[in-house]
Amino acid sequence: MALTRVRFAAGRVGQWKIDEVRVVRGETLPDASRLAHGEDAAAPPAQGASWSLEGVRSHERYTERGERESLVRVQPGLGRPESTRGALIPICKRASWWELSQDERRTIFEDRSHHIAVGAHYLPAIARRLYHARELGGPFDFLTWFEFAPENAGAFDELVARLRETEEWRYVDREVEIRVRR
Amino acid sequence: MALTRVRFAAGRVGQWKIDEVRVVRGETLPDASRLAHGEDAAAPPAQGASWSLEGVRSHERYTERGERESLVRVQPGLGRPESTRGALIPICKRASWWELSQDERRTIFEDRSHHIAVGAHYLPAIARRLYHARELGGPFDFLTWFEFAPENAGAFDELVARLRETEEWRYVDREVEIRVRR
Repeated sequence: MALTRVRFAAGRVGQWKIDEVRVVRGETLPDASRLAHGEDAAAPPAQGASWSLEGVRSHERYTERGERESLVRVQPGLGRPESTRGALIPICKRASWWELSQDERRTIFEDRSHHIAVGAHYLPAIARRLYHARELGGPFDFLTWFEFAPENAGAFDELVARLRETEEWRYVDREVEIRVRR
Repeated sequence: MALTRVRFAAGRVGQWKIDEVRVVRGETLPDASRLAHGEDAAAPPAQGASWSLEGVRSHERYTERGERESLVRVQPGLGRPESTRGALIPICKRASWWELSQDERRTIFEDRSHHIAVGAHYLPAIARRLYHARELGGPFDFLTWFEFAPENAGAFDELVARLRETEEWRYVDREVEIRVRR
């Protein structure tokens, strides 16, 4: 059973207008005016794009049963009509992260950085979908897509600021924040 | 940093002679006479092959720190001159496996099925290398490659028989065993 694949393509077409491409750490991505994205048959073409990134929806790597049950109760889907603001945050983690064992990564990820708990605090206002890209051979390990209403833009800024202060984020060596509206 | 990619290609060329293609569960793979495999620049071409499978070497998903330290002390590399027997075992797991949370999968994988411990019991006789394929969109989730000396073929049979009796293996819905020699 093939996993759902996504493509984000930045260029001159796409439902989302790019407000800002802001490098958080490492190398940036080229500016572009529009961002298109879609899953599987709805994926925009990579040809002609200024840049494109691919990922897959895959299974959860750290979430435990109880955490998932809490999340499922409150996490919204994408495409809410009022969610006219969005962000794509591609991230790459250092080799030293991937060399950790599973229990060490889980300890940093949740017990000490509270990644799941912090994200859950902003649900359902900030919808998010994680795509895995590391195995696909592209320049990033993860692509996270966020959607929210304009009045929740401040909450989004707070969410990403809190995550960037965590121990987990010391393992991030490239991060770009692409802010969009439709 | 791109992950190491592998390709296995079955057809009329390759260092390894295929002794048997045996389906364990689900659909088989076509018969072929030779198997070639290599990582990155050494990967054999897929063109002209009867079938080819790709995977990536990726980080460990269940191994904890103490387990890894035990493994590192005893696990051999590939390519030992005396290892003239080999096996490729591509596996696909049911959707119900991937829908489990990380703690549930770890509990089944090691606490109840002893996957790591069983594999470790046959080290260093049976060298193994795991490749992840699920995110690449191919027909299998994992490709595991084994190498061993002819006198350890019985130990190899015992290893895979023990794993196939575990609770974890109830989640396997396709498995093919390709036995080779050089």
